[in-house]
Amino acid sequence: MKTPIKHKIFNDPVYGFVTVPSDLVFSLIEHPYFQRLRRIRQLGLTNLVYPGALHTRFHHAMGAMHLMRGAIDVIRSKGHEVTEEEAQGATIAILLHDIGHGPFSHALETSIVHNINHEDLSIVFMDRLNLEFKGQLDLAIKIFRDKYKKKFLHQLVSGQLDLDRLDYLARDSFFTGVSEGIVSSDRIVKMLNVVNDQLVVEDKGIYSIENFLVARRLMYWQVYLHKTVLSAEHLLVNILKRAKELAEKQVELFCSPALKFFLYQKHSKSAFLNKPEVLESFAKLDDYDIMTAIKVWADHEDKILSFLCKNLVNRKLYAVELQQKPFAGSYVDALRKKAAKKFGLTKEEIPYYVFTGAVENKAYMSDSIRINVQFKNGKVIDIAEAADLFNISVLATPVKKYFCCYPKELRG
Amino acid sequence: MKTPIKHKIFNDPVYGFVTVPSDLVFSLIEHPYFQRLRRIRQLGLTNLVYPGALHTRFHHAMGAMHLMRGAIDVIRSKGHEVTEEEAQGATIAILLHDIGHGPFSHALETSIVHNINHEDLSIVFMDRLNLEFKGQLDLAIKIFRDKYKKKFLHQLVSGQLDLDRLDYLARDSFFTGVSEGIVSSDRIVKMLNVVNDQLVVEDKGIYSIENFLVARRLMYWQVYLHKTVLSAEHLLVNILKRAKELAEKQVELFCSPALKFFLYQKHSKSAFLNKPEVLESFAKLDDYDIMTAIKVWADHEDKILSFLCKNLVNRKLYAVELQQKPFAGSYVDALRKKAAKKFGLTKEEIPYYVFTGAVENKAYMSDSIRINVQFKNGKVIDIAEAADLFNISVLATPVKKYFCCYPKELRG
Amino acid sequence: MKTPIKHKIFNDPVYGFVTVPSDLVFSLIEHPYFQRLRRIRQLGLTNLVYPGALHTRFHHAMGAMHLMRGAIDVIRSKGHEVTEEEAQGATIAILLHDIGHGPFSHALETSIVHNINHEDLSIVFMDRLNLEFKGQLDLAIKIFRDKYKKKFLHQLVSGQLDLDRLDYLARDSFFTGVSEGIVSSDRIVKMLNVVNDQLVVEDKGIYSIENFLVARRLMYWQVYLHKTVLSAEHLLVNILKRAKELAEKQVELFCSPALKFFLYQKHSKSAFLNKPEVLESFAKLDDYDIMTAIKVWADHEDKILSFLCKNLVNRKLYAVELQQKPFAGSYVDALRKKAAKKFGLTKEEIPYYVFTGAVENKAYMSDSIRINVQFKNGKVIDIAEAADLFNISVLATPVKKYFCCYPKELRG
Amino acid sequence: MKTPIKHKIFNDPVYGFVTVPSDLVFSLIEHPYFQRLRRIRQLGLTNLVYPGALHTRFHHAMGAMHLMRGAIDVIRSKGHEVTEEEAQGATIAILLHDIGHGPFSHALETSIVHNINHEDLSIVFMDRLNLEFKGQLDLAIKIFRDKYKKKFLHQLVSGQLDLDRLDYLARDSFFTGVSEGIVSSDRIVKMLNVVNDQLVVEDKGIYSIENFLVARRLMYWQVYLHKTVLSAEHLLVNILKRAKELAEKQVELFCSPALKFFLYQKHSKSAFLNKPEVLESFAKLDDYDIMTAIKVWADHEDKILSFLCKNLVNRKLYAVELQQKPFAGSYVDALRKKAAKKFGLTKEEIPYYVFTGAVENKAYMSDSIRINVQFKNGKVIDIAEAADLFNISVLATPVKKYFCCYPKELRG
Repeated sequence: MKTPIKHKIFNDPVYGFVTVPSDLVFSLIEHPYFQRLRRIRQLGLTNLVYPGALHTRFHHAMGAMHLMRGAIDVIRSKGHEVTEEEAQGATIAILLHDIGHGPFSHALETSIVHNINHEDLSIVFMDRLNLEFKGQLDLAIKIFRDKYKKKFLHQLVSGQLDLDRLDYLARDSFFTGVSEGIVSSDRIVKMLNVVNDQLVVEDKGIYSIENFLVARRLMYWQVYLHKTVLSAEHLLVNILKRAKELAEKQVELFCSPALKFFLYQKHSKSAFLNKPEVLESFAKLDDYDIMTAIKVWADHEDKILSFLCKNLVNRKLYAVELQQKPFAGSYVDALRKKAAKKFGLTKEEIPYYVFTGAVENKAYMSDSIRINVQFKNGKVIDIAEAADLFNISVLATPVKKYFCCYPKELRG
Repeated sequence: MKTPIKHKIFNDPVYGFVTVPSDLVFSLIEHPYFQRLRRIRQLGLTNLVYPGALHTRFHHAMGAMHLMRGAIDVIRSKGHEVTEEEAQGATIAILLHDIGHGPFSHALETSIVHNINHEDLSIVFMDRLNLEFKGQLDLAIKIFRDKYKKKFLHQLVSGQLDLDRLDYLARDSFFTGVSEGIVSSDRIVKMLNVVNDQLVVEDKGIYSIENFLVARRLMYWQVYLHKTVLSAEHLLVNILKRAKELAEKQVELFCSPALKFFLYQKHSKSAFLNKPEVLESFAKLDDYDIMTAIKVWADHEDKILSFLCKNLVNRKLYAVELQQKPFAGSYVDALRKKAAKKFGLTKEEIPYYVFTGAVENKAYMSDSIRINVQFKNGKVIDIAEAADLFNISVLATPVKKYFCCYPKELRG
Repeated sequence: MKTPIKHKIFNDPVYGFVTVPSDLVFSLIEHPYFQRLRRIRQLGLTNLVYPGALHTRFHHAMGAMHLMRGAIDVIRSKGHEVTEEEAQGATIAILLHDIGHGPFSHALETSIVHNINHEDLSIVFMDRLNLEFKGQLDLAIKIFRDKYKKKFLHQLVSGQLDLDRLDYLARDSFFTGVSEGIVSSDRIVKMLNVVNDQLVVEDKGIYSIENFLVARRLMYWQVYLHKTVLSAEHLLVNILKRAKELAEKQVELFCSPALKFFLYQKHSKSAFLNKPEVLESFAKLDDYDIMTAIKVWADHEDKILSFLCKNLVNRKLYAVELQQKPFAGSYVDALRKKAAKKFGLTKEEIPYYVFTGAVENKAYMSDSIRINVQFKNGKVIDIAEAADLFNISVLATPVKKYFCCYPKELRG
Repeated sequence: MKTPIKHKIFNDPVYGFVTVPSDLVFSLIEHPYFQRLRRIRQLGLTNLVYPGALHTRFHHAMGAMHLMRGAIDVIRSKGHEVTEEEAQGATIAILLHDIGHGPFSHALETSIVHNINHEDLSIVFMDRLNLEFKGQLDLAIKIFRDKYKKKFLHQLVSGQLDLDRLDYLARDSFFTGVSEGIVSSDRIVKMLNVVNDQLVVEDKGIYSIENFLVARRLMYWQVYLHKTVLSAEHLLVNILKRAKELAEKQVELFCSPALKFFLYQKHSKSAFLNKPEVLESFAKLDDYDIMTAIKVWADHEDKILSFLCKNLVNRKLYAVELQQKPFAGSYVDALRKKAAKKFGLTKEEIPYYVFTGAVENKAYMSDSIRINVQFKNGKVIDIAEAADLFNISVLATPVKKYFCCYPKELRG
């Protein structure tokens, strides 16, 4: 009797159970680099609007891994060869696709870790792990970087219809409770196929894809770009900016060592690549460092820092206005004057209190990677050109919205 | 202590529980006219494709009633008066909105009950019940016929966003298992409001509405107009046509008395209105009469009738081709010749074996009733004109598809 | 490229998708014997209490087949060999395990088809299919009859924890909407294993098993033995008895040919086995024949038959009393006298109006097949003896309840 | 037109939507004391085993509030008066019932905040809020402390079947993904009633209650007392103990100010009651302070502290053995010797590496508050005595289990 692999099983409210397919994958999951994803929330501050949205990048990565196994089973059952080694490579690639994320990535990348983005960092982490695991991640990295001959494996990891998106939409709608955003990821997976080394969807799945794209757009406006979420995230960006400013002036700020490393020093991209202690420090940074500092900073003597932090901690978020056109300069100026007066601010301080910006969503980007549909007559065409799905081409049109934030005290 | 109403509760897998709000409503539910809806499936033969789709018009009517109570609570909580009498009227109107349906309405109305449609019959049934219940349905009928001053009550019963649609989409997607079609009916209900006596949706609900419209379209193509469902329904239409033809020639056919009444006699619309025995016979007709007859007819000596019935009973459904353009005459002729030869058919018999037709779906009919959205600035505009929802206007474009059916034996 | 099996997929609201694993299995599903299960409801008249409970034996058989594939995958992954042939055998055995059911089995077997039960009929059907499929069902039949060497395969088909039960509990609770009865069938399946050719549950699954047994008991009292369901089923038994009585007196009754065959003639068990036309007629009998007849009989001139049928059709079900002890003779006599007077009944007719009976449930029958639990130390013990699960042994104690039914007109 | 209350709605994946019923309640939710519950997880470290279990005490309190509104509606509909003031009082009482919880309560209360428990702290917080809200919480506090004349209101807040338990079971099973633990809280709520000022369950609900109690027991063993969760929690207890020990020796430890306040000083119960700064500091303490400290301590020079912290942060949890009987002294001694040798420990240090303990669960405590069932004949009896529910009395028997934890390095 062959010794069976010790199947480790994880509970997942989204899919029921997630099974770890091999010992190597299990070892990667157990690695501190991956375990840290347990302390980084998938949706940052979104829980301030949707209290259930506390799920982590750890759980998302596990879910995407689960979908990958399903997708490979489906593709194999349709007559395409995927070797066990390739299956493991693709599984590891999706498992680690987001390992470079730090806490509140968006905010962090625009303030204190601005020389390198999370995509690059994912590669750095994978290379480091590959060294540690003696080359066992070679194929996974090839697939991740789209250097492997079977292109469809990369498309499963990163594309218009990759398992990353399929998992995060399903997971984010589940945990936020925004049930309209629910995507039947497992149904879509069953309709995948491969034609000429391209990932395609069988034609019977076009309405599911349409629904997927619309659900994604809904999630964008209802959740990812929800105006109160925007307000909270920009509050955080401003907090980190102010802290950086103070740090540069050598003002003392309560910080964990890892946060101090990034707040009080600058690190170039090459430092991330070449100095192990930089990556090591980054790997120690998570939601806890940031939020604990902010809680303490709420009592800092710097008026602006403490004002911003108190507002975030006690969820006194700024008012947000959202509209189709940029805000008139005069309108914003009036708010700024009001703020300067009410809070006694200098000109430099005002942008921490009143600020504007823009957000954009383009649910289906027809100019980049495409979703190909396989029709029964053998033709493969882009879903945007499928006859009765006018919607899709419309979804490709970007929608841009402008916002203006200011303390609620300025209202009325 | 006030005697509480004896709240009768029904289990509903879709909503958990459905509570009957008053004794009058309960008496209506207990009436044989309403109980007969327990024997009429909501989706006719759809269960031949989606085996779970066995839910009845009874359950749908109960669900719509449940949503009505929720909608009235929401509208009241937003400061609009709805008296208890009005609430009951609207509840009864939605409860009985489909009471005129016979078994397999579509097929029946195009074959043996062709002088009156189910909408007219619903009115006939309601009038009859109103007599029996001594005028207690007066207000309900007014609302149903849109003769009541508060127009929004009628809109809850029948409109682009009525509780009928909200329930049937939720219910049909639930029982078919087509999870992409799931609509968060309870979420949409919470966003209803009334402005100038018009039912509106609050602006925060526009993405939910978009999703609702897309889900509806998906359900049309994936379920209601699924090509195998079309094939089964047209098989049934042909069976009933053939039976009618034979009946007119006085050929003996196994029938329940109620079916015999409609198969062997013609009844004008005025007979439905004026002769009680016509309505009484209609009220005895349900899925059981039709399917039992078909099962027996499968052994009838008429070759065509038995061929059609055997195919339906044993689910040997015709092949269906579906396309964007009408089928070429030459293509259909070739199939007809093949059929004539293979099955030894006369010219008159061929259309029972090879037939074409068209189906159309228009998810949002902007030319008729509109979905109005209430923005925070007070404006109320049609959702099709809301800025970033290009989709909606597109959904208003009708999509027409053509089909051609023939026995699978003719394939290849 | 190997030609892939044409995977036919069914939608199932319970599990999402059910995949048909092989061409042979698909052919069996397409056979008229199996298709007839589409017209036989799993829970008979239960929909009169739980309106969603319209699911059929067809859907249940498909669901059990789905669980079987999962169970075999799990068992294989734990290092036990199951050949592809054995997997198919077990799959067919579970698919066909209930094929011998007629409409409203319980009622039918106690009235008009009383010489043979559905278990025996399942074997008859399987043997007939095996002939037609030229011996391809040999292994499936061996497994079904527990004649195959690997005993655990039979235990998956029929035992305390078989896939039949796992599916019907999950399915019945889903469609009734009795959410407390929901069993995580897929979770239990993941915990199955085989020790010494016995099906066992891993010890971490004991609380799931406890929950399963309690949920099953709840479903018994809340659904299967619900007093209104009992009342409806006994009304049906009485209808069929009365019809049989009238048929024996050669009174003419509206019947489909299949129903006439059983109502007006007696067929011995050996006739079922040896005369093809008996099985053929039985295969034509389903819910439609019975319910259509009852609807027509509601207008029959026999006072008793029409009274019983009207009550069932219009859901004017008898009142039911349910208690722990048998009803006192005097109590029942008083009701009978009242009935005789009110309805003008002869002595022979009274039992159709007032009748008593008993129901019993024994959720875990420790005297028969056992649920074995495998502990980490290697020991395998009966779950009823597992230390802290006192409940289980208690669940083995049969609970018997007595009921008394009579027309509601006799109340008060 | 009456000005409607501005209904604030929260998304909740468990119930869909949770509506805030009044302005006062909304103000309480917005208070920093309540907002801090957003940073305290309901299940502490359970997410190390069930990665979805990240839900907070904030969300639980909101859910319990939602069930309270439902329960009051049901009780009113059954003819019992509950004034609007009483409804608000009960709502506030349940909303604030857990406001005294600190982070990882169990661990904290046995290490650094050991003079006062969370129940007492809840009262302290409520009193403080009552001052701030000028007596508007008077009735809520009376109900919470069971000093109000209508006893059933208190029973809804705290009893064998209170809305606290109904919510946390539903919520914990939802987020862990342990679907067997799912309780139909809304179904149970519909079956509540009041008899003689006692909360009772209608008799048709007894199987639901049985299921509730069994589900609760399952959740205890499967989740709350899961051996790996135990191991993690005891690791945390040991970390805090070691930190306290070092703090007492004035060893410097990285701490947020709030954590420092409790780690380096002792505060008596009366200090909590009388010194505002003690409560204020406590109110600043949450999961973030604890976890950030532990992450930093993983690099502390104290060998024991850093060993314990590294294990927790990287999820290298201790091995756990769980059994029905206490561990033999000789067995534990052998482990201790092994540990001392392997890790070079002094006698005092050993208990940080090898330790034993016991856990107990008593799902239905018949000796304290009872679940009363109301039968149709008017009798009210304890569910444990209801005839065919032997189980319940059995559930009252406490089950105790013993555990032994040690580093995995000592295995084998």
